[in-house]
Amino acid sequence: MGQKPLDYKAAGVDYDKVDPVKLLAQRAARATAANLRAHGIAEIEESRGESAYVLDLGEVLVASITECLGTKALIADAVRPLTGRTHYQAIAQDTLAMAVNDLVTLGATPVSVHAYWAAGGTGWFDDQERAADLVNGWKAACDRCGVSWGGGETPALSGVVVEGRIDLAASCVGLVRPRERLVDGRALAAGDAVVLLHSSGIHANGVSLARKVAERLPQGYATRIGDGRGYGEALLDPTPLYSPVTEALHAAGVRPHYLANVTGHGWRKLMRHPGAFTYRFDRLPPVPPVLAFLQQAAGIDDREAYGTFNMGAGFAVYVAAADAEATVRAARGAGIEALVAGRVEAGPRRVVIEPLGLTYGDEELKLRA
Amino acid sequence: MGQKPLDYKAAGVDYDKVDPVKLLAQRAARATAANLRAHGIAEIEESRGESAYVLDLGEVLVASITECLGTKALIADAVRPLTGRTHYQAIAQDTLAMAVNDLVTLGATPVSVHAYWAAGGTGWFDDQERAADLVNGWKAACDRCGVSWGGGETPALSGVVVEGRIDLAASCVGLVRPRERLVDGRALAAGDAVVLLHSSGIHANGVSLARKVAERLPQGYATRIGDGRGYGEALLDPTPLYSPVTEALHAAGVRPHYLANVTGHGWRKLMRHPGAFTYRFDRLPPVPPVLAFLQQAAGIDDREAYGTFNMGAGFAVYVAAADAEATVRAARGAGIEALVAGRVEAGPRRVVIEPLGLTYGDEELKLRA
Repeated sequence: MGQKPLDYKAAGVDYDKVDPVKLLAQRAARATAANLRAHGIAEIEESRGESAYVLDLGEVLVASITECLGTKALIADAVRPLTGRTHYQAIAQDTLAMAVNDLVTLGATPVSVHAYWAAGGTGWFDDQERAADLVNGWKAACDRCGVSWGGGETPALSGVVVEGRIDLAASCVGLVRPRERLVDGRALAAGDAVVLLHSSGIHANGVSLARKVAERLPQGYATRIGDGRGYGEALLDPTPLYSPVTEALHAAGVRPHYLANVTGHGWRKLMRHPGAFTYRFDRLPPVPPVLAFLQQAAGIDDREAYGTFNMGAGFAVYVAAADAEATVRAARGAGIEALVAGRVEAGPRRVVIEPLGLTYGDEELKLRA
Repeated sequence: MGQKPLDYKAAGVDYDKVDPVKLLAQRAARATAANLRAHGIAEIEESRGESAYVLDLGEVLVASITECLGTKALIADAVRPLTGRTHYQAIAQDTLAMAVNDLVTLGATPVSVHAYWAAGGTGWFDDQERAADLVNGWKAACDRCGVSWGGGETPALSGVVVEGRIDLAASCVGLVRPRERLVDGRALAAGDAVVLLHSSGIHANGVSLARKVAERLPQGYATRIGDGRGYGEALLDPTPLYSPVTEALHAAGVRPHYLANVTGHGWRKLMRHPGAFTYRFDRLPPVPPVLAFLQQAAGIDDREAYGTFNMGAGFAVYVAAADAEATVRAARGAGIEALVAGRVEAGPRRVVIEPLGLTYGDEELKLRA
C-alpha cells in the first residue's frame, strides 16, 4: 500500500501511559483487602490482579468483574449505512463476552449480570431499532450463558460520552461451586496440553487499529475481504461466549489447570500465568479471514499480528495431556471448535509459536504490580 | 434574575425518552431469571427493578449493583482552576456512594467493589495529581464503608468518551447475612416512622441543572453562596457513604422496614415503596446552603426543588415508631446527623410535606415496568 505499517501505538493506544495509574490503583486496592476481616470473609489472593475478583465466603466462592466493550460500537455505527443493520445485537454479545469470558477463567459459573449503557445524550435511545437490537442481543447472550440479567444503568451523559455514541460495559457475578472448581493456576505443570478455542474474528480487542486501517482503505469498511464479505461487517462478528465450554468441561469431569481469555496483547496473553513456563505451540488454529485481511492491510508482520490480535485463538484451556482430547470434545459439544495446539514446558516464561518461528519473552507481557 | 426558571427538562435531561427502553430492558431482563434454575439458585424477586439485585444462594444472599456517577466530574473539571484542587478525591467518593448507598437499601453489607474509569483517551491519566486523587479518594471511600477494592477497568475510549473527560462508575457486591437482614419492603406498615439522614449537598443528582445554573451566573462557579463559599466548590462536597449507618442499625438491633436512597426525583423517591402508603412529613432537615442557593438561582419553586434535589434528606430509614430514636442515635454514632421527620400512613401512595404544603402523587414517580 506504500504506507508505513500501522502498529498499536500508531493507532492511538499507548499502554505505557495507562499503566502507572493502573499500578498505583492496584497497590491501593490491595491494601483494602484488610477490610474483609471485619465481615468474617476473605479474598482469594491469587485472584487479585487476575481477570476476576474472588471472595471466599467459606461455603461458596463469589467472583465478580466489570469489563468494558471498548470502541467496537464505533464500527457498528460506521457499518450500519452499508449493511442496513444496526449490528447492536452483536455489540451486546461482545460486551457481555468481555465480562463472561474473563470471569470463567477463575473457574466461576456466571450467574448474573448488570448492563452499563451510558449514552451521549437521551437522544441515543430514540433510535428504537438500535435500542431494541441492544436489548434483544443482551438478552440472547444472557440466555446463551445461563445468566440472569439483574439490572443496570442507562444514563444519558451529555458532555462526558460523545454525542450519538454509547459507552457499554458489563458487570458479572459468578459462583465457584464446589470451591474445588477454583482455577488459581497452582495446578499448571510442565507436560500440560494447551487447547485453543477458536475465535470468530477480531472480538473486541485491537479495534482501534482495525478502525485506523479502515480510514486508510479507499473503500473503507466496504472493502471486500478474502471470504467475499465486507471488512466492516466481518469485524462485527460477535465474540463467542466461552462459558458453555467451561461448564461442559466441568460436566465432563475435566479439571482445567489454567484458563486464559485471549484479549489485548493477543498470543502474549497465553503466558498470563505468572509461573516460569514455556508455552510451545506446534499447531495453529485457522486465522479468521478478517484478521488475515487486517494483518495484510495494516502491513504488520506475524510478530505484531500475533502479539496484538487473537489470530484464531479466542480462549486457552490448559489441561493434563490426558484430558486434551476430552477438552476438544467438550468444546465441540458446546458448539465451539477447538484444537490441541501446544504444551507447557519447564523453562523461561515465554510463548513459542514454532510454525511461525516466533517467540514472545517474559518482558513482553507486564500485567501485574 | 429576569430569566425563565430552569427545570430539569430545560437542562437537557428528558426522562420520557429514556424510560421506554428501560421498560423494554426490564421486561427482557425479567425473563432471564429462569436461567438461574439450572444453577440451583433463585433470585429475590422483590429486588428486581429495585436499587440492587439479590441472588438467593440458600445459606447467603448476594446483592450486586452497577451505578454511574453521571456528569458531576464536569463540575470538578470546571472548578479546579478556581480552587487549585482537582476535587477528584470527592468525585471518587461520590461514585462509590452511588453504588453503596443503593446497595444497602436491600439490607446488604457491601463487601467488594470494582472501579470503572473510562477516559476519553490515554492522556487523561497523564495528569498525575488528578489520577492520584482519584485513586486515593477511591481507597479512602472503600475503607470508610469497609469494602475490598477488587479490581476494575481503566479503558481509554477515544471517540466514545469526550476527550479530556472520564466516565466513572462503580460495581458493588454485598452480602445479606443473616438472610433475615433482607429489606424487601414487606415489613413496612402504617404507623412506622421515617428517619431522614442528612445530606451533604447536591450529592450526584440534579447535576445537569446545577451546571446550567452556573452557565447563567455572571461569575459562574465562583459565585459566593449563603455560607460564603464558592458555588462550584460547594457543589463538590462529596456524597456521604451511608453504609456505616445501616451497619450501625444492625449492630443496635434496629430492623429497618424499608430503606430509600434519595437520588434522582428528590423527595418523590420517598414513595419508592410500591405499596399504598402516604408518607407525611412534619419536620424538615436543614437545606444545605448550596441547594438553597441553587433553588433560588434556578428560579424554581419548592415543588420543583423538592421533586428534583434531596434538599437535605440524603437517605430515608423507615422503622417501627418505637425504633425511631434508636435510629437517630445509631446514625449519629456513625457520624451522620438524622431527624425523625415523618410517618407512614395507610392511604393513597403520595408524599406530603406539611411545612411546605406540598404533595407528590403516585403518578409523579414511575420507576417500574
